Order: sequence, then C-alpha cells, then structure tokens
Amino acid sequence: MSEFKLTTLEEMEAATERLLETGAKVGADSWQMRVKNQTPHCKFGEEGVCCRICTMGPCRITKKAPRGICGCDVHGIVGRNFLRFTAGGSATHSDHGREICHTLHEAAADGNYKVKDEAKLLRLAAEFGVETEGRDIYDVAHEVAEVGLLEYGKPFGTQVFLKRAPQHTQDIWKREEIEPRAIDREVSCSLHMTHMGCSSKPEALIRQSLRSGLSDGWGGSMMGTEFSDVLFGTPHEIETEANLGVMNADNVNIVVHGHDPSLSEMICEYADDPEMIAYAKEMGAKGITVSGVCCTSNEVAMRRGIPMAGNFLQQENVVLTGACEAIVVDVQCIFPALGPLSKCFHTKFVTTSPIAQMPESDFIRFNAHTAGENAKAIVKMAIENFKNRKPELVHIPDMKQKAVVGFSVEEIVHKLDGVTNTQVDKTGTTLPLIECITSGVLRGAVAMVGCNNPKVRSDAAHIGLMKKLIANDIVLVVSGCSAQAAAKAGLMDKRAKDLCGAGLKRVCELADIPPVLHMGSCVDISRMMVLAATLAKDSGLNISQLPLVGCAPEWMSEKAVSIGNYVVATGIDTYLGVEPYVSGSDQIAGLLTEGVRDWVEAAYTVEKDIEKLGDMMIERIEEKRAALGI
Amino acid sequence: MSEFKLTTLEEMEAATERLLETGAKVGADSWQMRVKNQTPHCKFGEEGVCCRICTMGPCRITKKAPRGICGCDVHGIVGRNFLRFTAGGSATHSDHGREICHTLHEAAADGNYKVKDEAKLLRLAAEFGVETEGRDIYDVAHEVAEVGLLEYGKPFGTQVFLKRAPQHTQDIWKREEIEPRAIDREVSCSLHMTHMGCSSKPEALIRQSLRSGLSDGWGGSMMGTEFSDVLFGTPHEIETEANLGVMNADNVNIVVHGHDPSLSEMICEYADDPEMIAYAKEMGAKGITVSGVCCTSNEVAMRRGIPMAGNFLQQENVVLTGACEAIVVDVQCIFPALGPLSKCFHTKFVTTSPIAQMPESDFIRFNAHTAGENAKAIVKMAIENFKNRKPELVHIPDMKQKAVVGFSVEEIVHKLDGVTNTQVDKTGTTLPLIECITSGVLRGAVAMVGCNNPKVRSDAAHIGLMKKLIANDIVLVVSGCSAQAAAKAGLMDKRAKDLCGAGLKRVCELADIPPVLHMGSCVDISRMMVLAATLAKDSGLNISQLPLVGCAPEWMSEKAVSIGNYVVATGIDTYLGVEPYVSGSDQIAGLLTEGVRDWVEAAYTVEKDIEKLGDMMIERIEEKRAALGI
Repeated sequence: MSEFKLTTLEEMEAATERLLETGAKVGADSWQMRVKNQTPHCKFGEEGVCCRICTMGPCRITKKAPRGICGCDVHGIVGRNFLRFTAGGSATHSDHGREICHTLHEAAADGNYKVKDEAKLLRLAAEFGVETEGRDIYDVAHEVAEVGLLEYGKPFGTQVFLKRAPQHTQDIWKREEIEPRAIDREVSCSLHMTHMGCSSKPEALIRQSLRSGLSDGWGGSMMGTEFSDVLFGTPHEIETEANLGVMNADNVNIVVHGHDPSLSEMICEYADDPEMIAYAKEMGAKGITVSGVCCTSNEVAMRRGIPMAGNFLQQENVVLTGACEAIVVDVQCIFPALGPLSKCFHTKFVTTSPIAQMPESDFIRFNAHTAGENAKAIVKMAIENFKNRKPELVHIPDMKQKAVVGFSVEEIVHKLDGVTNTQVDKTGTTLPLIECITSGVLRGAVAMVGCNNPKVRSDAAHIGLMKKLIANDIVLVVSGCSAQAAAKAGLMDKRAKDLCGAGLKRVCELADIPPVLHMGSCVDISRMMVLAATLAKDSGLNISQLPLVGCAPEWMSEKAVSIGNYVVATGIDTYLGVEPYVSGSDQIAGLLTEGVRDWVEAAYTVEKDIEKLGDMMIERIEEKRAALGI
Repeated sequence: MSEFKLTTLEEMEAATERLLETGAKVGADSWQMRVKNQTPHCKFGEEGVCCRICTMGPCRITKKAPRGICGCDVHGIVGRNFLRFTAGGSATHSDHGREICHTLHEAAADGNYKVKDEAKLLRLAAEFGVETEGRDIYDVAHEVAEVGLLEYGKPFGTQVFLKRAPQHTQDIWKREEIEPRAIDREVSCSLHMTHMGCSSKPEALIRQSLRSGLSDGWGGSMMGTEFSDVLFGTPHEIETEANLGVMNADNVNIVVHGHDPSLSEMICEYADDPEMIAYAKEMGAKGITVSGVCCTSNEVAMRRGIPMAGNFLQQENVVLTGACEAIVVDVQCIFPALGPLSKCFHTKFVTTSPIAQMPESDFIRFNAHTAGENAKAIVKMAIENFKNRKPELVHIPDMKQKAVVGFSVEEIVHKLDGVTNTQVDKTGTTLPLIECITSGVLRGAVAMVGCNNPKVRSDAAHIGLMKKLIANDIVLVVSGCSAQAAAKAGLMDKRAKDLCGAGLKRVCELADIPPVLHMGSCVDISRMMVLAATLAKDSGLNISQLPLVGCAPEWMSEKAVSIGNYVVATGIDTYLGVEPYVSGSDQIAGLLTEGVRDWVEAAYTVEKDIEKLGDMMIERIEEKRAALGI
C-alpha cells in the first residue's frame, strides 16, 4: 500500500486548471468565468433589503427610502426574504422525501423497487401505528408509505417523528409554538405569512422559519432517509474512492448527479448487468464505471460503494474530462450549465425528472413503474455514446483517495458496540462515545454539512476546518458536499487517524473508524438529529448541553438554510462561513445570532474568516464542556 | 332621491389630497410619498432577470453576463421567478380557504360559528361523498370540513372541484398534465422545481404555474368561497354604500380590513349588540359604524350590507379621517404602514392573526374558540378609544354612493329566473343570459378583478374600463378592489344603467340589476369560474368559445397572478394593465401571451395603455362572437 498523504487543495486546483484548458479549447463556459461576470453582486440582494413580493415595487430599503411602498420596514423585508428562503429549502428537501414515500408505495416483490431493510420497515410501522402482525411485508410497506405521505398534508396534529426527540426538546417546541404541523402546510403558511400585507414582525417571521425548518429535518428529510433505507438498505461501513480519478478512461463512464436515489440505484443495477457490460465491450470499452456527483453520489456510495467523482462545484469537471459518456441527473443542485457544456463534448446530459427539466438535455422521463426500462435505456445510450468520444479531449486527473463511508446511526452504534465489554456493558447505545467525551479523550463533535460556494475557496473551508478539528480531538460527522470534500482529500481514509490529536486517534484505532464519518446525503442530516437525540437520551443531558455544534462553511442553497434552522431549533449551535441574505436588518440578524437562543437554546454564528470560525467552534465546545464540569 | 351622478376620479383625488393635508400636519407618511422614494424601480427586478435563489449570487442577467453562476439562462430565471410568484399567491389564497375549513370544523349549534346555509352544506356533502341521511347537520359539517382539509394534503388524486368544470376543460387539464393534486403539494412542488439546480425549462415552469394556479381557483379559493357561504350565508342582493363618506363622525368607527370573514363577521355581530351600542353612547358617541376595506369589506358587504370605506390604496385614508377608532385587520394586503400611521392619530391598529403580525399594532389573537370574546374586546377597545379622538383632525370626505351587491352565482341565476317565462322556460339556469348574448342584446361579459397599484392612476383603469365596456353592452362581473372601485364611483347603483348601451340597459331594467355585478372578494373569483362553467354547460359551448374575458387592470399581488393563471388555464383570455416581472425573457413572455393558448385555449394580454386594453377586450369579444356566428 502506498504511503498515505492527503490530496492538497493546490493539487485539486491544478487538476481543475488543466480541465479548464480543455474547456477553453472547445469554447466551454465555466462557473469560474460566470462568477467573474456576475461580481460584484447586488448589495441590496446580498443584504436582503430588496422586496419583489408584489408589483408595486420592486422596493429597496435605503437611508433615503426607509420603507417599501406598503410601508414595510427593512426588518420585515429581510425577515420575509429569510422565511421564503427557508421555505424553498424545506419544500425541496421534503418533496424529495415525498418522492421516496411514493416509491415505497409502489414497491412490490416483483417490482422495480423492493423492501430491502424489513427490520427498519417494521420499526417504522410500530412508530407510525401500522399493524404488522401476520401481514405481507408489502402491505405493511404501502400502509407505512401512506402514513408517511399524510405527514405532508394531514389536517390536524404535528409531525410523528417529533417524538424521537428528547422530552425537553419536545417541550421547547411546544412552548415556542414551533412544532411543525403537516410539512406542506408549513411551506404554504410561510408563503402566506410573507405575502404582501401579512407578517412584518421579525419574531413571527423567524419563529415560522424555525418551524418550517423543523418540518424538514424532523419531517420530510427524516422520511427521505428512513424510507430510502427501507428501499435501498440502511448504510453500513463500506469502502469506496473519491475524486475525478475514479472515472476510468477505458470504460464507459456514467455519472449520476442530483439527490434522489431512486434513479441512481437503478442505473447502478443495470450498469452491473452482464448483458450491459458485454454490450459495452462490444462497443469498444473495457467496462462500465458509474460514479457520482453531489448527494445522489453520497446515496449510492453509502449503500453500494459507488465512487464519488466530486462535489457540487466539480460537476462541470466530470464533463471536462472528455470521458463522460452520460451525466444522468435527477433533482436539485444541477447546473443548467451542463446543457451547453455537454454540447461541447460528446457527453449526453440526461434529465429524468418532470420537476427538473432543463434546456439542451435529453429528457427520459423516469418513474417507479418504468424505472427498469428507463435505467436500461440510459445505460445503453451511454454505451452507444462511447464511440463518439474525442480522444484528443480525454484527460482524467490521476487523483483519488480511498474512503470508508456508510456511517448511519445504526452503523455508528454497531461500531461502538465493538469497543464495548459485552460482559459488563449494555450494547446498542451511544454510551461508549459519551464516555469518550466525558473523559475528555474526545472533546466533542462537529456536524459539518453543506455545499460549495464560489464565495469560499472550493473545499478549503471544509477540509481546513476538518483538519483543525480532528487535530483538536473533535470527531466529525459529515454529509453532502462536505462529506465529499473530506473523501476527496483523504480524510475518510482510516489512515487519516494520524492527523488527529492523541485522543481521537486512539478512538479511531479502537473503533476502527476514520476521524471523519460519512453519514450520507443532505437529507441524511436527519440521521445527525437522531444521533444527537440518542446521545442526549443516553447521557441524560439536553441536546443543547452536548459539546456538539453544526457547521456549514461553504453553503449556498435554500436547503442549507432550512437545515440550519432545524439544527438550531433542535438546540445545536450552528456556524456558517457564508452570510445569509440578512445583514441589512440588525433585528433579523440579531434574532438569528442571539435572540433565538432564548427560545431554543441555540443560535447561529456567521464568520467568513474560516480560521476564526474553527476557533469559535472549539471555544464553544469547550464552553459546553466547562458548563458540564467535564 | 337626489339626481344620480358618478363620483369622478378628480373628486376622489381631491378628497385624498385633503386627507393628506391632515397627514402632513401630524407628520404622517403615505404611500404617495413612499412611491416617490422608491422610484425608479430596479430594472433587473422589474424584468424578472434577478435571481436570489441561492447564495452564490445574487445573479443578474445582462448582455455581459448572459447566465447566472449555475449557468441558468434568462428564461430559466424569469420563469422560476414567475412560478414562485404564482406559488406565493396560490398558497396565500388557499391558506385563507383552509382557515375557513378549520372554522367550519369548529362550528357548533351553540358555538361562535354556526351553519347558516344548510342547503349549500348538503350540496357540498353530496359533492364530497359525505353521508347526510339522518345525521346531525354539524356532524355533516365537520366531515365535509375534513374532506375539504384533505384537499390540501391528500397523497393521491386531484382536486374534487375539478369535476365542476365542463368535460372539455377537464380533458384539457388532463392532457396538459396540469390537473392540480393536493393544493399544498402544488405549492411545495413549485418551490422544489424552482430550487437551485432544478427546472430551468420555460415550458415546465409555466405549466406548473398554471397547475399551481388551478389548485387555487378550483381548489383553495373555491373552498374558501363555498365554506364561507355555509358559515355566513350565500350572498343575495343587498344594498350598501361605498367610499369614505360611509364613516360617521358622530359614531365610533371600526374599520375591518383584510380577507378572512371569520373575524369581521364577529365584529359586525358585536357592533350590533345593544349592550355595545349603549356603551358607545355612554362614551359620547351616537352609535357604532363598522365599515370595511379590501376583501374583508367585500365579504361583509355581500352578506350584511356593511358599507365599504374603500379599497386597497385607500386603507391609509380611513385613518387619515381622524375619525377611525380602530382599524382591525386579519390577513393579506394590509399596509405595515398602518402601524406608524395609527400612532399619528388616536386610532388603534389591531392585528389579530398569528400569521399577520405587524410592529406597532395591538395584537389580539383571534381563534374560533375565543372569537366572541375577542370581537367583543376589540369593539370595546374601539368604543373606549372614542374619547381620544382629536376633533381638530377629524375630516370625513362627504362622498359615498349607493351600491347593490351580493351577486353570487345563486343570486345571478335567481335574477335570471325573474325574467324567465315560467310557463315555457326552464328555471335555475343561465339560459336567459345566454339568449341575451346570442341575440346580441349583450355583446359579452368581462370579469374584472384585482387590486390597485400606484403604477396606475388609482381606480382610473377599473372605472374607465367599466364605463367603456358597459357603454358597449358588455356586462361586468367584478370582485375585490375592482368591485370597490365600481361601487365608489356609483357603477353598482342600478341607475348606472343609463350609462350603458341600449342592450345592456334593457337587460339591467328587465333583470333589475346594476350593470356591474359585485360577485365578492378575491377568493370569490372561484364564483366566476363556476359561472363560466355553468354558461358553458348550459350553452353547450366550450368555456373558451364564450364571449367572455378576464381583466385585472391595476393588479399588484401574487394572488392576482395565481388568479390570472387559473383564469387563463380555464380557457378565459386575461388582460393585464400592469406588467408581471417577465419582460426580461421573450420565451416566458411569449408563452404567457401566446404559447399557453396551444395548451389551454386562452392566454394573457398585457397592455399598459388602458384605452387600448379596453379596445382589445372588445375586439376579442367580437372575435369570439364572430367565430360562433352570432
């Protein structure tokens, strides 16, 4: 085995530069170029002080114009924009979860989709009050799916999964009137509140932002995670690789990209089909390589070990290799740029979802009934496209790292059981982890999540913070593009333990884990909520007392704000490296960074200096420890 | 009876000027001043080419920067913004409908809310498949309400009310895949589609805009209307008055404002209470006058004859009279400006809805259980505030008109029955109206709706167009602020028949109606959909063949776009006097003004020159007549 060494940012950037040279040859546009065209950004928009909610405007708040035409002040405008931003994210995450519910509802013993994790389904059935005794597992699955689907629209009551939280947390949600009702209702209500002539009171707007966020994290996202596990299997430790070098110049390369695993699971299935492999060989390739980008990649990496080609800001790079026969996308975070970019190469840009159609793409409409044939058609299309490759344009950076992924809560508990003395200890708990934290071997944990954003040097914040934190004996649980940044750098290689402080290194060795634990895609931040709840229950502490913070250092999407809101509302301080569009209102910014602490025992910190951001997280963790006297 | 004469715009404007003088005395701000501060508006926003959907931006499309950072082109950005604008309106209207469903669910024989129109409830029960035989009417009401509430969130199927449309229309909706599913799902799906990295294809975005609109017009709004009728009575012809002169300097003046009738109905109830009237007298007033602004006003005018003080852009004027003891608001279209403005006077600005809280207001949280005591407290607060009036600031413009309102579909049919020869004709149909149109006595009908907008001289477009159309023998059905403009001018006085062409005049005389028929609030545009559907069924024509167009000449809100979309999607050409934020994309603008015609047999026309707009509507009506050979 070669010597272990992290891939540096400089190496990654050099690889990107080389790919952009290919791009320049074929006249391709790139996000790097578009950023130049789009900066400086509009200050009104960045500060959140621009309102386009009715056509009396647009209005913009300035010293000269302190109120919009309706009389709304800057706090109302910024607050409304923030709530709408949240609702956009909450709706998006949750609608993804809904699609998974519908897929489960279509599952059949002889169908495209089957129940893979029966035990989890039965646990969910118990939680949802669905009878299981003596019933066919698919009948149970369908009824569980129906109950899940009703979480989106039930006229009465609050989210079922709230009961997973510690009582203290549930009491807070009730007291603060932020218990989410039906998921879609919170979305609609958020839009109603922010309609012209409704809410302009900052407290009301921020309260609803938390509520709408909670309907995502403890509602739609949690269902997305749980039902994906039922259908595709609960993740367990698995090896994979990450970075563009996972693509194979000799093979047909299919890249899956987006968020919903329903499509990519099928693509993986058919890419493994001997018939398809034979066909690829017939067409001159040595085989078929499926790799992934963004959260679709996380989903199939966690469950199948499918390699990760890259994260959000690398999506154009996979096409720029000149070796991508098809980039197949489902929903969310897909650059419309892939349309024109793919036309500069032989690459097929295949859109598949009715709700994510893009110009200059091949649209193959995907649904649960036709999933198999759709996937087969896409794999065939990619194979047949191999011959169209322009060899002079092919360049795959020789850059990849090994990564161990698949740390669902179940897997983490399983790993912890491994260090338990089964003679004297209870198994199936997080107690060993709590002991490590209490004893000081570990100082605490950071949940690092979120996207890339050109406003931050790509992956630099993710990787830089992770290195700093693990050196300080702080374990990381990560997801989304943050997880992929870690994997690309090598931080999910178990040998990365050597970069840790002595305590964390020892824990990694004992538990046989890397110091940065891949918990999944962005909907899987719900796993982190379950983990936090479990730690609180197992320790007898409130979530807000745990030396645990959240961090999204390079976030860019509405989903990230929805996530931030539910993480904060769950009692976990959250650190952002990119400013949300709220700086124009000291009242809104003040509520988010301090005021909400009175409601939910946690708040946001925003700091663009990444070094400082890391110091602040460590400081907060140490404060929490001090408060506990540990 | 004094001679009948329309109130002119100039008279209304002079009255406003006089009130603004009072405002200047007390240092009050006004929309007229804020408009000056806020113009010129941001061109990027007005053209719809600015994207703030993720924090990589904001991005703005220019020649130099033809794509956003994600690569989205101008059509994707404008289309996303338009879909979000629609979703905001659809969510808002529909959430109003939901509140009414919840109120019906709380109705009880001895409760604050009762079933007033049992016959309508039973019709709805039959439509919703709710058993009625031998059941208590409140059990039926609650079950109907539950079915209604599930229309917002049911996991499967499409809106129940779609079946009210002619088969041809239903077939179009099915073919074009725009049949709305659960109302809130369409909202969430719209946000998901427009999330960073989802849809950027104009056709997909506009199709969803129509679908989300339909979920409002044939879903949430229709439930709002129907259930309001069940609770508060189906409107029938009733006399009222309109314009600021309805306020009474000797009385305690309570102004209700907003959209949801649940609150205002209770206020009216208690303002009529002899105990309250006695208390008002005790406090030095001669009595209590309740008047209304915006759609709350339309609701109580239609059902109780409560006078209408004004429409959207007159809301500050009611406070500027110095004689407003309380302006009591529920949701939507309420100027946050009322907070600071009321502080310049003795006026109590009372907010009542958790989802429409505003700074500088007295918040009295209103709900179905406490409705009675809430309303009583508010009425008392107003009475006790009478003594705080500053007499030197009191000036109520001596300006009002009589108006006959209450033209629900049921009332229109009832009126038509009046001109039927019951010996030979079928009653309970729209056939007499169809005969008038077929024979050419009437040329057609225009549904005129929507708000005021400072971009148009206030009420000028509404009133000007109405005068032009009735002179051309075109009957008007109106709602919302458009209806109030008509009433203020005097166009709902039956004597306005003298301003009509000979044909319409004759119809007004025979049917004993004014030429401009008040059909209610903005959710009541659903009544117009039912009317159009009934006309189509009774005539055997498709809706798109009827010489009927829609018009919103001074619109400003997201709701108006949602409405426009469902009106167009129902097959009715729709004419706008204010530009939506889409001019930056010829593809989006082209779809809306022409492309959608291939899908739904109707499209938008946008024309800021109001004279031309009128001519175009008349021309379109005549084209439709010619096509029918009538």
